[in-house]
Amino acid sequence: MEVVSLSAPAHPDQAIRWVESAVLLLDQRVLPRVERYVRCCTASDMADAIRAMVVRGAPAIGIAAAYGVVLAALQHANKTPAERQRAFDRDMAILAASRPTAVNLFWALRRMQALLANQPNIPAEALLAEAKHIHQEDIIANRLMGELGAACIAAPTAVITHCNTGGLATGGHGTALGVIRTAFQRGKITHVYADETRPWLQGSRLTAWELLKESIPSSLMVDGAAAARMRTSEIGWVIVGADRIAANGDVANKIGTYQLAVAARYHGVKFMVVAPTSTLDLSIASGADIPIETRAAEEVLLCGGTAVGAPGADAWNPVFDVTPAELIDVLVTERGVVRNPADKSIRAILS
Amino acid sequence: MEVVSLSAPAHPDQAIRWVESAVLLLDQRVLPRVERYVRCCTASDMADAIRAMVVRGAPAIGIAAAYGVVLAALQHANKTPAERQRAFDRDMAILAASRPTAVNLFWALRRMQALLANQPNIPAEALLAEAKHIHQEDIIANRLMGELGAACIAAPTAVITHCNTGGLATGGHGTALGVIRTAFQRGKITHVYADETRPWLQGSRLTAWELLKESIPSSLMVDGAAAARMRTSEIGWVIVGADRIAANGDVANKIGTYQLAVAARYHGVKFMVVAPTSTLDLSIASGADIPIETRAAEEVLLCGGTAVGAPGADAWNPVFDVTPAELIDVLVTERGVVRNPADKSIRAILS
Repeated sequence: MEVVSLSAPAHPDQAIRWVESAVLLLDQRVLPRVERYVRCCTASDMADAIRAMVVRGAPAIGIAAAYGVVLAALQHANKTPAERQRAFDRDMAILAASRPTAVNLFWALRRMQALLANQPNIPAEALLAEAKHIHQEDIIANRLMGELGAACIAAPTAVITHCNTGGLATGGHGTALGVIRTAFQRGKITHVYADETRPWLQGSRLTAWELLKESIPSSLMVDGAAAARMRTSEIGWVIVGADRIAANGDVANKIGTYQLAVAARYHGVKFMVVAPTSTLDLSIASGADIPIETRAAEEVLLCGGTAVGAPGADAWNPVFDVTPAELIDVLVTERGVVRNPADKSIRAILS
Repeated sequence: MEVVSLSAPAHPDQAIRWVESAVLLLDQRVLPRVERYVRCCTASDMADAIRAMVVRGAPAIGIAAAYGVVLAALQHANKTPAERQRAFDRDMAILAASRPTAVNLFWALRRMQALLANQPNIPAEALLAEAKHIHQEDIIANRLMGELGAACIAAPTAVITHCNTGGLATGGHGTALGVIRTAFQRGKITHVYADETRPWLQGSRLTAWELLKESIPSSLMVDGAAAARMRTSEIGWVIVGADRIAANGDVANKIGTYQLAVAARYHGVKFMVVAPTSTLDLSIASGADIPIETRAAEEVLLCGGTAVGAPGADAWNPVFDVTPAELIDVLVTERGVVRNPADKSIRAILS
């Protein structure tokens, strides 16, 4: 991966760009202090970038993986058919193994793979068109979800969000943060409280940056403060994204989401999950079966890149948790809004 | 304040030491990476140290303030009676203003002030004896609470704790962490999950350090992970300290405590607060009236000393929150255990 400087300030809606047979990814490891892209020229580059969280957020990972398939097709174009197929299959496996929880990754790879059926060659141009299509569809879905989610908010209110679900986490506009952006434009949101979202600080680094770029009034808070915020001031909604949604409506999302959902229910605050239908995984019956990525203890022992934990300390570092469907008031998808999501209502939205 | 190096590894139970007419404070801003003391020679030094969190933890702040009164008496001993009284009163005010939430500070100052009634001079020796007495009493109270709290735990279990409530936060042994230390020795605790406790990372830096020194099996986790931990594994108790307890049993403690209490209730996990009776404030009817310190937004925007938050972002940074009495199963004091604390049972334990 090669670092590419920017000639103008970065925009959250341009986190993934296809430029001259390569993918430029806005480097989310170093935002907001450094605005730079990294260039991925191979599928292996892209898998590294996904694993290292240069690009993150379930929908963005799906889009990035789709472009990664195109990179594989281009890279191996001049090989013999047998070699090409072997190399391409290996690249697909590398991309699939980059992160385990977000289902959009597998969904995008399956969509790309469908173009290969009964093809004697690997159709690079068709794959690129499909990747761009996945990218564009996601932006359109986000704008639709923005309107649908905003319409759920009856009166102007303050909201809490978690992690980053904006332009940076998607093809553009965002899922949960997309609803917040649209709802703010419609006069439905007075203030956004953003969890800093340890250990990776997506809230502090990325969501705060996006909210500032959009001039939406906001305050960061530590992840432990959300319940106190609900108790001491008017919070109408908690609005979050999702990495994978099981057939029964259980939602895997960034660690801390479940704790927010429990606190929201205790305080009578409404809980909204915003995710495109590519996040739904009907092959998984309930949240208990969603594979939850655990990352290195070091991410907890480090804080802002500085070692803070006691030397020798252990840490439990699951990246996601599961919020059971019964704690979710509204699931917003690009196909419509599901109230009190459950097996039946989720199958209905997909049919 | 002058920095003093250590000749041997620091021990958590020696966070506050009276040495040669000065107070040595184990510098909790730089633990666990640097083990050093700072020397306070005046009450103003001590107030600075409390404000800067060189020393923190409600009981430790009380002890430190008591020694601060002794420092004031010594510093002004050679002044004229009128000048002495003015300077001394000013120092008392400076100490009282150092931090607003922990009531042990005011309790200790009142105890010291009681010695001054009807005294023509300021009795430095008697004040020193009283400060040492407050210090020793706290250690004895903590050992007592350790036994009383451990006795509440029926069968060996994993527990969750928040912030730091060990030797570092007290005169020695600790309140909540004191119960954990004693209960571990009695075979009642299998594993300790310690919240890292943003923004100041008392869990990551101080509690993990103490648990390692005591060889108690433990894992750190981010503050958002506690509910997921309760859902996915057997947690018998959440055990926390307190900075101030209102007459009705509402508890002010480190931000994040209330969220833990809500999650504990949702999962049927027992919730224990451990605090000496000096933490009880009968002058305050309920938690709504406890003054909650708000610190600089910068503490949230910094992480491990590194600026991580988006430049220009705002942050809401209350240091404490209030857990209502109805979420507390057991309050452990040195005078006994209060189950389901409320006005009547709290007054009973004090009488």
